[in-house]
Amino acid sequence: MSTPRALITSVEVTPVAFADPPLLNSVGVHEPYALRAIVVVRTDAGHYGLGETYGDETHVARLKRAGEFLVGTDAFNINKIAERVAESLADDSGQGGHGTGGMVTTTSLEDRVLSAFDVAALDIQGKVLGVPVSTLLGGAVRDEVEFSGYLFYKWAGHPGYADDQWGAALDPSGIVAQARKMVDQYGFKALKLKGGVFPPDEEAAAIEALREAFPDILLRIDPNGVWNVETAVRIGQRLEPVLEYLEDPCLSIEDNAQVRKQVNLPLATNMCVVAFNDLPPAIKAEAVDVVLSDHHFWGGLNRSRLLAGIAQTFDLRLSMHSNSHLGISFAAMIQLASVTKNIDYACDTHWPWKKPEDDVIVPGVLSIAEGKVKVPTAPGLGVELDEAALARMHQQYLDAGLTKRDDTSYMQSINPEYELQVPRW
Amino acid sequence: MSTPRALITSVEVTPVAFADPPLLNSVGVHEPYALRAIVVVRTDAGHYGLGETYGDETHVARLKRAGEFLVGTDAFNINKIAERVAESLADDSGQGGHGTGGMVTTTSLEDRVLSAFDVAALDIQGKVLGVPVSTLLGGAVRDEVEFSGYLFYKWAGHPGYADDQWGAALDPSGIVAQARKMVDQYGFKALKLKGGVFPPDEEAAAIEALREAFPDILLRIDPNGVWNVETAVRIGQRLEPVLEYLEDPCLSIEDNAQVRKQVNLPLATNMCVVAFNDLPPAIKAEAVDVVLSDHHFWGGLNRSRLLAGIAQTFDLRLSMHSNSHLGISFAAMIQLASVTKNIDYACDTHWPWKKPEDDVIVPGVLSIAEGKVKVPTAPGLGVELDEAALARMHQQYLDAGLTKRDDTSYMQSINPEYELQVPRW
Ligand SMILES: [Mg+2]
Ligand SMILES: [Mg+2]
Repeated sequence: MSTPRALITSVEVTPVAFADPPLLNSVGVHEPYALRAIVVVRTDAGHYGLGETYGDETHVARLKRAGEFLVGTDAFNINKIAERVAESLADDSGQGGHGTGGMVTTTSLEDRVLSAFDVAALDIQGKVLGVPVSTLLGGAVRDEVEFSGYLFYKWAGHPGYADDQWGAALDPSGIVAQARKMVDQYGFKALKLKGGVFPPDEEAAAIEALREAFPDILLRIDPNGVWNVETAVRIGQRLEPVLEYLEDPCLSIEDNAQVRKQVNLPLATNMCVVAFNDLPPAIKAEAVDVVLSDHHFWGGLNRSRLLAGIAQTFDLRLSMHSNSHLGISFAAMIQLASVTKNIDYACDTHWPWKKPEDDVIVPGVLSIAEGKVKVPTAPGLGVELDEAALARMHQQYLDAGLTKRDDTSYMQSINPEYELQVPRW
Repeated sequence: MSTPRALITSVEVTPVAFADPPLLNSVGVHEPYALRAIVVVRTDAGHYGLGETYGDETHVARLKRAGEFLVGTDAFNINKIAERVAESLADDSGQGGHGTGGMVTTTSLEDRVLSAFDVAALDIQGKVLGVPVSTLLGGAVRDEVEFSGYLFYKWAGHPGYADDQWGAALDPSGIVAQARKMVDQYGFKALKLKGGVFPPDEEAAAIEALREAFPDILLRIDPNGVWNVETAVRIGQRLEPVLEYLEDPCLSIEDNAQVRKQVNLPLATNMCVVAFNDLPPAIKAEAVDVVLSDHHFWGGLNRSRLLAGIAQTFDLRLSMHSNSHLGISFAAMIQLASVTKNIDYACDTHWPWKKPEDDVIVPGVLSIAEGKVKVPTAPGLGVELDEAALARMHQQYLDAGLTKRDDTSYMQSINPEYELQVPRW
């Protein structure tokens, strides 16, 4: 092997929590705090690299174990890092739990643990070499990345807490008001409605209300797979004139393939194609048009480039999925999107739902204007760790008392009648 | 975009010729000189990067034109380089001719022009940053790369020239003698016979003679697609006990898919899957098991990594194809193989057929021992241009008077009865 350039001397994994509004979805409602794990990888030459990923305790435990395997590895050899991560997971079978929270549960264990270390290693490489991560990924093809506004049905505030700045959105007019506020503030040219919350016709009416209020804005809806084929076809056909794409109307490759034959809209997914081994069956079934990539479960930025190349080869389109995230993830998403020629749609982000002061990076680098974010050009990811903020966010995690994301139990604590159901309609 | 790190100031494309023995194949015989184009890309900071590719005049013209489009581009942005190359080819339709010589004619125009510039850009990046190309490609997973010995039916020498050191090989005993010499000198643990020259049963007998003479060496045969399905099945079944894989028994995806169902051997190809748009139909047809990658027509080293990732995702195996080449190509093949975890077989190379003094690089870095080559760890590709050698090899090109590879016409100049035929048997 060639001479190591940056030997990893330590890996710190710190769970953090940040305030999250009561955003409704198909499995319940976001809890008052969202969890993330912050990964700080340090090298013998004094550089550090940042990664951010899911904060569930199962995942944090795996990250810490993988971190031990990485000490002594060259941060310039991500292939070796991937091997070490795989070794750290070799006897993982008993640990149970996917550890990523939310609804995307069939991702690759190795890829979702690798991801934060891939990002941190690229951050280190960029800092050592004096180039942004985009350069390490083949070179930026754009200097701004376009994002979509992510609309949610929501309560005015968490029960027992004060109302948040966004207010309630429980019907078409509430969604339009939320969209207005979000578009005014960030200039989004595309809007996505998180559906799967209310009866499908009510959600379709919300999309139609958005179309009337914003004639030029591209629209999407994502019921997270809780519609059956019949409902998906009916609502899909109803929304054909107004949608940019229909996201995960059903849960399985088979059901979405059926829907796709009967609805004249691109079908997008971040639920039935979430790992490399989902690609062959999904392509064979012609189930989807658009893969919403997510470096957090596709194995990091290098592996996400592979996904982009596969999409190009197999005539799939590409955009980007988002979970609630902080600035490190945002920077990584932006660096990746800047080098990915075939990002065909504005990317998702939860960024506006996060309080600006809730973060672990030095503020000021990342901001959305006219729906776009300028790609950082400083070495590495282009964001710097704020150690005091990390400590504060970790204390917030300890104070919140949460150890995993569980939208369903939280919903049931408020509404004991609430039951999970897939499909629901 | 981020600040350019190495602006391209000039691109020189120099056709060269090197002595080549009379190696027989399914379309004729190698001419006395093989052609290559040497690409030298220079930057504003005084670095240079090397690429090597096909030397046919059509290809050289395209390279020169693409080179003009690259001046002013950042050598650190291969995505942009690819865009410029595509622009240079936008009105190429009238030029005609694939320009790569030999039998592989349906490769992607953009990818085969991009390739040498991708390699040269990586060479520059590595030199600027002080890292080998393997590091830029994700990090070496091995420090030696294994190659196979490439056996050819051949005449003792070109008509009108002195016999070469290898002598004639026109039957099983000739092939065994050639193999003995090659194994003694280079220590190969795998041998491939270029077939498609003699009636299939004679070639099968040669493989069986090799098995008897070298019980522990892995064996392959490549008739370059000139067998029909019936012959391929018959010979394939006959050789099931002795082959590692069967390479391109037939020419088309459809025919190979039929053969694959009836022969219990892995099927390999560098003829029916030679571009990204061949992958979806080949995968759908389940036509092959092994893709023999070749960065010269798969768009360079970055795009070849994509091919490797696709192979892994779709459960294809991977090895590497070779045309007659010089040291720059060899270095690039080695760097690529060093980072490609799923290279499942020893790679092909024509290296032993080239005179050591016929090259454009400073000698001494690349050598085969025990069937393996140590991966260079110096910055970039790890090989240096020998300007005087380049001038000498270019003079040899001028003196040879060849402007494209044409094994068939050369064969017909010797044997006027000779006719192309696919399939021949
Ligand atoms: Mg979704
Ligand atoms: Mg071949």
